[in-house]
Amino acid sequence: MTRVAVNGVTGRMGGAVVETAADRDVEVVVGFATSDVERAHGVPVVHPEGATEALREYDVDVVVDFAAPEGALTVADACAETGVAMVVGTTGFDDDGLDRLDAVSAEVPLLKASNFSQGIQVLQRLVGEAVRALDDYDLELLESHHNGKVDAPSGTANSLLATIQEERDVEPVYGREGHAPRDEDEIGVFARRAGDIRGEHELVLAGNDEVVTLAHRAEDRGVFAAGALDAATWLVGRDPGRYEFGSVVDAS
Amino acid sequence: MTRVAVNGVTGRMGGAVVETAADRDVEVVVGFATSDVERAHGVPVVHPEGATEALREYDVDVVVDFAAPEGALTVADACAETGVAMVVGTTGFDDDGLDRLDAVSAEVPLLKASNFSQGIQVLQRLVGEAVRALDDYDLELLESHHNGKVDAPSGTANSLLATIQEERDVEPVYGREGHAPRDEDEIGVFARRAGDIRGEHELVLAGNDEVVTLAHRAEDRGVFAAGALDAATWLVGRDPGRYEFGSVVDAS
Amino acid sequence: MTRVAVNGVTGRMGGAVVETAADRDVEVVVGFATSDVERAHGVPVVHPEGATEALREYDVDVVVDFAAPEGALTVADACAETGVAMVVGTTGFDDDGLDRLDAVSAEVPLLKASNFSQGIQVLQRLVGEAVRALDDYDLELLESHHNGKVDAPSGTANSLLATIQEERDVEPVYGREGHAPRDEDEIGVFARRAGDIRGEHELVLAGNDEVVTLAHRAEDRGVFAAGALDAATWLVGRDPGRYEFGSVVDAS
Amino acid sequence: MTRVAVNGVTGRMGGAVVETAADRDVEVVVGFATSDVERAHGVPVVHPEGATEALREYDVDVVVDFAAPEGALTVADACAETGVAMVVGTTGFDDDGLDRLDAVSAEVPLLKASNFSQGIQVLQRLVGEAVRALDDYDLELLESHHNGKVDAPSGTANSLLATIQEERDVEPVYGREGHAPRDEDEIGVFARRAGDIRGEHELVLAGNDEVVTLAHRAEDRGVFAAGALDAATWLVGRDPGRYEFGSVVDAS
Repeated sequence: MTRVAVNGVTGRMGGAVVETAADRDVEVVVGFATSDVERAHGVPVVHPEGATEALREYDVDVVVDFAAPEGALTVADACAETGVAMVVGTTGFDDDGLDRLDAVSAEVPLLKASNFSQGIQVLQRLVGEAVRALDDYDLELLESHHNGKVDAPSGTANSLLATIQEERDVEPVYGREGHAPRDEDEIGVFARRAGDIRGEHELVLAGNDEVVTLAHRAEDRGVFAAGALDAATWLVGRDPGRYEFGSVVDAS
Repeated sequence: MTRVAVNGVTGRMGGAVVETAADRDVEVVVGFATSDVERAHGVPVVHPEGATEALREYDVDVVVDFAAPEGALTVADACAETGVAMVVGTTGFDDDGLDRLDAVSAEVPLLKASNFSQGIQVLQRLVGEAVRALDDYDLELLESHHNGKVDAPSGTANSLLATIQEERDVEPVYGREGHAPRDEDEIGVFARRAGDIRGEHELVLAGNDEVVTLAHRAEDRGVFAAGALDAATWLVGRDPGRYEFGSVVDAS
Repeated sequence: MTRVAVNGVTGRMGGAVVETAADRDVEVVVGFATSDVERAHGVPVVHPEGATEALREYDVDVVVDFAAPEGALTVADACAETGVAMVVGTTGFDDDGLDRLDAVSAEVPLLKASNFSQGIQVLQRLVGEAVRALDDYDLELLESHHNGKVDAPSGTANSLLATIQEERDVEPVYGREGHAPRDEDEIGVFARRAGDIRGEHELVLAGNDEVVTLAHRAEDRGVFAAGALDAATWLVGRDPGRYEFGSVVDAS
Repeated sequence: MTRVAVNGVTGRMGGAVVETAADRDVEVVVGFATSDVERAHGVPVVHPEGATEALREYDVDVVVDFAAPEGALTVADACAETGVAMVVGTTGFDDDGLDRLDAVSAEVPLLKASNFSQGIQVLQRLVGEAVRALDDYDLELLESHHNGKVDAPSGTANSLLATIQEERDVEPVYGREGHAPRDEDEIGVFARRAGDIRGEHELVLAGNDEVVTLAHRAEDRGVFAAGALDAATWLVGRDPGRYEFGSVVDAS
């Protein structure tokens, strides 16, 4: 049975990973968090500073990480040091952070994804195709998440934007106010934050008196937790390097 | 300049074709309608029974048809007799009607489509791909049109359903009431009718705690009128036979 | 601390009630279910046939019920016999069933609701107001739920329909297929069933080249579980009779 | 028959007013525009600088205005000078502009509205009620318009925001990017611009694991043109002063 450590175990996603693991052939043996608790969801909690020792002590195969960039990097270094694989679900890294993850992936298998759902994987492909086919339609991207999400736009929205930009040379604008004529080459990218919204993404393609909408909605954090655990199981035993969630989906 | 006759010229779509033609390099020279008026939108109106003579008198190149099945078939026969090409936008034919259209297409070029928009063309392709990729997700199809549309579901919804059925063996149900457990192999197909809604189609793919939505909305009948006129111009001078709107789009 | 029995404890909603209760000042002491298990979510499970004895044995104050009509009525009778209050969340009763619930409410306080959310309560009021104000607009009602829901339309959709019918004399149609001209006095009522959708309701009011949409979406069964437990706490100690969820909301 | 002048007659909305007037008991006798054309939609076109003379020459009863702020103010001054009533649909005035309109309304009846639809009027009321009832839910406002609209957010969105702010002390933010934690008292206000979208407004109220959505969509500029002409007919013959579109709706 795969032995998993959850970074960010006291957060919403961390909790969902522990719950989802209970229904599967994986065992969450330890969690990391900066908060001062001893256990969360029945799992012992260790401060990220103690990750290196804990990964050894609990004989961890793979870390599943949904935390803040700083804690994620501390744990990533611990993985590199101990040879433990890592699934990175944290988003919002700056360039330095991304470089450090690259360095870690030279030592251990590392899979970083902004979203762990089949639906998002499919959406990415459809978005690429639609933008290519309706090549003179205006594009606008909207995402919605719960009011506790602090980075904007979401990692998934940024991935969708990257997919769009492979097809067309558009510049994002993140808000419009006052005199704001739309440039032909711009794309509005908007981040709604409200209540407990699980995660919604919507691309609008409009032109020629018609509108095409491609959208995804997560009903529950469970969808991401399940995907992250799929990725974790898949990742254990692979060679060091960077991996994509798309490979996990294709394998299923 | 292409000389066009509009069947159903007193209807909403017929009027949109005349208006849209005014901005393009085509001339609407006559219209057909069962109503008792002499002119509509500045165009002389002839009863479908007199179509054969009118097609000759006005030297028509191609008929654009948005009418009821009976009138459409009367005019189609007139096209066969006079060698005039025909773009058929009318929907709701029974099997006999479809056979008669087949017979007409042995004599003249005939392009029948349930929808004349680029967006719908693209949506068809995306729907096929999404249904293939998310192969165990439940599918539900919803369309919305103005309160004067009498057939249900729309021709476009039926085309989307056919696309889906190429990928998966699903049976449509058109309503649910009372004790109605969902069968794994069913697809709900719903037709909303309200106000002046121009035309909306939405496929929902749901499973695994997530929902993917692919949707199209027409802002205006102009989108269909423009596509039908594109098809008309493209069709003139071709060999007798059946043609698809997809070919027109690929050529643009 | 209020002592609660959950009818339908092995179902999705029953499980949500137990989980939600853990965060609140109520204790779930026993569950009822027809399935052959001894415990569910840590709670002892009794067959509905044994409800009368169990309500006494576990000293239950109030039953929270999310089950099928037959089991709900068996437990309701047990409540009447033992003087235990009952919150009924089960839907889909026939006229006989509704009569039996009326008889039970002569003996104990009984609160029956099709939906236990603040948002739905507010939506009901807005729907009434909008239908009154836009009195010649067409109305169409759509609800979406997970693929395991067997009755259609949902209890909430039926409540919304009742609210609408207080304002206007409309007849529901539950599907449209073939030649289906819309009658001025009809309202389309559609039930989508797909994946794990938690519960969505949407009323469209369309006319005069515009569309007003009033919609509600549950992100999680937790919203209903919390509302049902609010109702349960509120109900204990009241006089026998029928109560409305609206009264609970106004009190909060 | 009411004699109407249309300011902004060469624009989209101006054209819609002329077309809509053709079906009604009003006559558009002259139009104003800065562009160098002699006629538009069959109506003689005069530069705003010549408005005073034209209002007299064509014996105008009321101006219907959908233009840019500068042209609107020039024509408003001409109305004040000639005693002609004015319906102002132009949006985006600065404080100076609003003061000048106030001065004009001391001389003639003036009705300024950001939106001339029944549906928006009703939406305004529902928004107020929903915000009051769900008083701790997060609010986010989204509007979508065609890619040629240069001011953001729309006048209607600003009116909805004002309605919301009467109920709750929220501060608008017009975009989110980077580290952007949501403040409890903020409201996201987003303006999508794409294709030919006629005009959509959507308020989301989210909290407690549920989302309530109140939305409006214009199918066609005709809805606003009709409302503006209703307002124009209603306004002629009234005392000088400021009037609200709500009064016109209540009268119908």
